[in-house]
Amino acid sequence: MSVIESLALEHTTKIVLLVLDGLGDLPNADHGGRTPLEAAKTPNLDAIARESTLGRLTPVSPGITPGSGPGHLGLFGYDPLTHLVGRGVLEALGAGIELEHGDVAARANFCTIDASGIVTDRRAGRISSEVCARLVGMLQNEMRPIEGVDVMLQAGKGHRFVAVLRGPGLGGAVSDADPHHEGKPIPPAHALEAGATNERTAGVVNAFVARAAQVLEREHPANGVLARGLSERPRFSGYRERFKLRAAAIAAYPMYRGVASLAGMDVFVPAGDGAAEAFAVAAREWAGHDYLFVHVKGTDMAGEDGDFTAKVRVIEAVDQALPRLLELEPDVLCITGDHSTPVPMRGHSWHPVPVLVRAAVCFADTLPRFHEKACRSGSLGDLASKDLIAVLLAHAGRLDKYGA
Amino acid sequence: MSVIESLALEHTTKIVLLVLDGLGDLPNADHGGRTPLEAAKTPNLDAIARESTLGRLTPVSPGITPGSGPGHLGLFGYDPLTHLVGRGVLEALGAGIELEHGDVAARANFCTIDASGIVTDRRAGRISSEVCARLVGMLQNEMRPIEGVDVMLQAGKGHRFVAVLRGPGLGGAVSDADPHHEGKPIPPAHALEAGATNERTAGVVNAFVARAAQVLEREHPANGVLARGLSERPRFSGYRERFKLRAAAIAAYPMYRGVASLAGMDVFVPAGDGAAEAFAVAAREWAGHDYLFVHVKGTDMAGEDGDFTAKVRVIEAVDQALPRLLELEPDVLCITGDHSTPVPMRGHSWHPVPVLVRAAVCFADTLPRFHEKACRSGSLGDLASKDLIAVLLAHAGRLDKYGA
Repeated sequence: MSVIESLALEHTTKIVLLVLDGLGDLPNADHGGRTPLEAAKTPNLDAIARESTLGRLTPVSPGITPGSGPGHLGLFGYDPLTHLVGRGVLEALGAGIELEHGDVAARANFCTIDASGIVTDRRAGRISSEVCARLVGMLQNEMRPIEGVDVMLQAGKGHRFVAVLRGPGLGGAVSDADPHHEGKPIPPAHALEAGATNERTAGVVNAFVARAAQVLEREHPANGVLARGLSERPRFSGYRERFKLRAAAIAAYPMYRGVASLAGMDVFVPAGDGAAEAFAVAAREWAGHDYLFVHVKGTDMAGEDGDFTAKVRVIEAVDQALPRLLELEPDVLCITGDHSTPVPMRGHSWHPVPVLVRAAVCFADTLPRFHEKACRSGSLGDLASKDLIAVLLAHAGRLDKYGA
Repeated sequence: MSVIESLALEHTTKIVLLVLDGLGDLPNADHGGRTPLEAAKTPNLDAIARESTLGRLTPVSPGITPGSGPGHLGLFGYDPLTHLVGRGVLEALGAGIELEHGDVAARANFCTIDASGIVTDRRAGRISSEVCARLVGMLQNEMRPIEGVDVMLQAGKGHRFVAVLRGPGLGGAVSDADPHHEGKPIPPAHALEAGATNERTAGVVNAFVARAAQVLEREHPANGVLARGLSERPRFSGYRERFKLRAAAIAAYPMYRGVASLAGMDVFVPAGDGAAEAFAVAAREWAGHDYLFVHVKGTDMAGEDGDFTAKVRVIEAVDQALPRLLELEPDVLCITGDHSTPVPMRGHSWHPVPVLVRAAVCFADTLPRFHEKACRSGSLGDLASKDLIAVLLAHAGRLDKYGA
C-alpha cells in the first residue's frame, strides 16, 4: 500500500477532475506567438484562475510522449511506468468492449494470404469499414467456442477489428500471430512466459486464426486474419479501495471510460461529446459520487488536425459551459490535460501540461489567466501527473497527517 | 532496457550537445551582482535564447557536487548514481589511456620507504614531474609481465602516475596497496569481493609494488610506489545500442573523450582547446554522426582559478565561434554545463546548471538572454541531468509514443 493510500480518509468533500484531452500546446507563430489556451476568450476560466493554484504536469517522465492510456492512468494516480495496459486491452477498451477479469484481448487485422500460406498484404488491400463489418459478422457467426473459450469480435475501421477471448485459465503473455512483414507465413502464437495459461491462450489464438482462414476461404482480398498485442485485462486496485473515493467517469469516447473502469470508476456516457452534456451528467450523478472525472475530447482532435482555431473553439465552448459545473460547488476543481497535443505537431507530445487546482485552501496565485506560460510561475509548480491525486485529496481534506 | 531505450527510433535528425565545463556560477558582488554568463557580451547566444526553451539541470541530486565523470555521465543519460566509474579508471581516461574491456587501472604514487618498510612520505617529497617521468620510464623498462598480465605505466604530475593492468581474468574489486597515512608499512592489496579475478589482480598488484621497490632501490626519495583506486573499465551499453545514435565526442582534454568512450562515442581531438577548433571538427565529422558532444574546458578552468574575467572571455569566445556551429543547422542544439564551477568558490559546486534547447518544436520562451537567472523562468523547467537525453531525443523526433 502506498503512503497516499495509507493516509486516505473518508470525507464528504467532492473532487472534480476536468480533463481537456491534449490541452497543452506550443506558441504559434501564425497567431502572435500565443497558444490556443492563451488565444481563447475564457472569462469563466479567467475568474477561476485568480482563485486557483497553477502549475504544470509531466505525464510520464521528461521527454516521454504518452498515449491516451498512460496519460490518463497518470492523472488517476497510477504510475504509467508500472501500471501497464496491453495494446489489445486498450484497443478493446477503445472499442467500448467491457472487459472482465481474465479476458485476453488482441488487435486483429484482415490480411491476404496466397495459396502457399504466405501473407501478401497485411491489410487486405485496406478494405472498407463496411466490408470489415460484414466479414466480422460472418466470422462471429461461424465461431464456436475453442476449448471452452468464447471468441468475441468487434469490427473497427478499415481492415482492423478487435478479438476478445473469454473463458477460464487464459493468460496474456503470448506472442503475435503476425509476421509483421509481407512475404512470410503467419507465425504460430506462442507463450512468452512459462505457464499453462499462456500456452493455452496461444493454442486458442492459433485455432482462431486457422478457423478464420477456413471461414474466409472464398473471400478476396480478405482471406485471413492476424492477431497482435495480446494482453490480459490488468488487475489494478480501484479508487474506492485506494483512495476511499466513489468515482465516476463521464466521457463520450469509450477509450476513456475503459481506462477509468480499470481504476474501478463507475462510467457514464453523456448525450453528446461537448462539455455541456458531460456537465449535465455530473449534475445528475453528483449525490452518489465523491470524485468526478469529466473528459472532453475535442481539444485533442483539433490538435491532431493541426487546427488552431478549432482548438480555441473547443476551449471557448468548455468555458461557456463551465458555470453549470461551478453551480455544483465542487470542493476541489482541477482542470488539466492528459498530455499536450500541439497544433504545429499534429500529434501528442512530451511538453508539460498546464494544470489548475481551485479549493478553499489552495495557494491562490491571483494570476489573471490559465495557460501554459502563466502556469510556469504558478505556486503548484511542476509535478508528475501520478502525484496529482495526492494534491487533490489533500485539498479536499481527505489525507491524514503523515507521522506524528 | 529503460523506457527511453525501448522507444528510441532511427532518424536522420542531428543533435549537438555543447558543454561549457563548469558553466554555472553565482552572482558576483565585484561585478554588479552578475554571473559570468550574465556579464558576457553574447549576441549569438542571445539570438538563440529567444528561439529556445530554457531551464536548469541538477547533475546528480540536490546538494551533490559532481566530479567530471558523474557530471558528464549524467548529461549523456547514464544515471551517475548507478553508473560508477572507479578512480583508477577515471585517472587513466584523464591520462589519455585507451582502456579495453577487462583492463584494471590504478592511481599510483611514488613514495619514500625506510629500511624497515615503513612509508615515511606518501608523496616522495613531491618530486617534480620531470623526475616522475624518468622514474616511470625506468619502471616500465624493467617491468616484465606478471602472471601473464602486462603492466602499463604513464607519468602524471609531480609524484603521480597511472598503472593499467591488461591481461586475462582480472577484476577491479581490490583494496589499495596504500597505508593512507605515513608511519605504516604498505598493506598488501586484497580482494574486496570474493572471486578468482579479484584475488588474481590483488596478487599482480602486490607483485608490481614489490618489483617496483626492487627497481627503485637506489633512488631517493622515490624508492617505492603505492597503488589505489583500483577499478575495472565499466561495461556500459553504448549510444548506438541505447539510443540509436552514432555519437561523436569532440574534446581537447583526454578525460572527456575517455568518459565519452565509455558511452561508445567515437572520439576526436580538435587542433586546439578553443570552441572554434572543436566546431571545425564537428563540421568535418557531421555527415557520419547523429549526435555530437562538443566539450569546452576553459569555463571550468577560469572558475577553478577564481577568475571572473577569464570566465567571461571564454564564454565570449564561444559566442563568437558559434556561427560556425549554427551553419551546420543541427535539428536540436543544447548548450549547458556538466556542473557549476562558481568563481567565488574556485571549485565545482552543486548549484543547478543553466540549459538551453533549441529545436523546431521547442516551447520557445522568447527570453532575451541565456543565463542562470533567465533559466529559472524557462519552460523546460528543472530537470535531472540524466533526463536530458530523453528531452533531446524527443525534440529530434527520435522517441516513439509510450503506450497507445
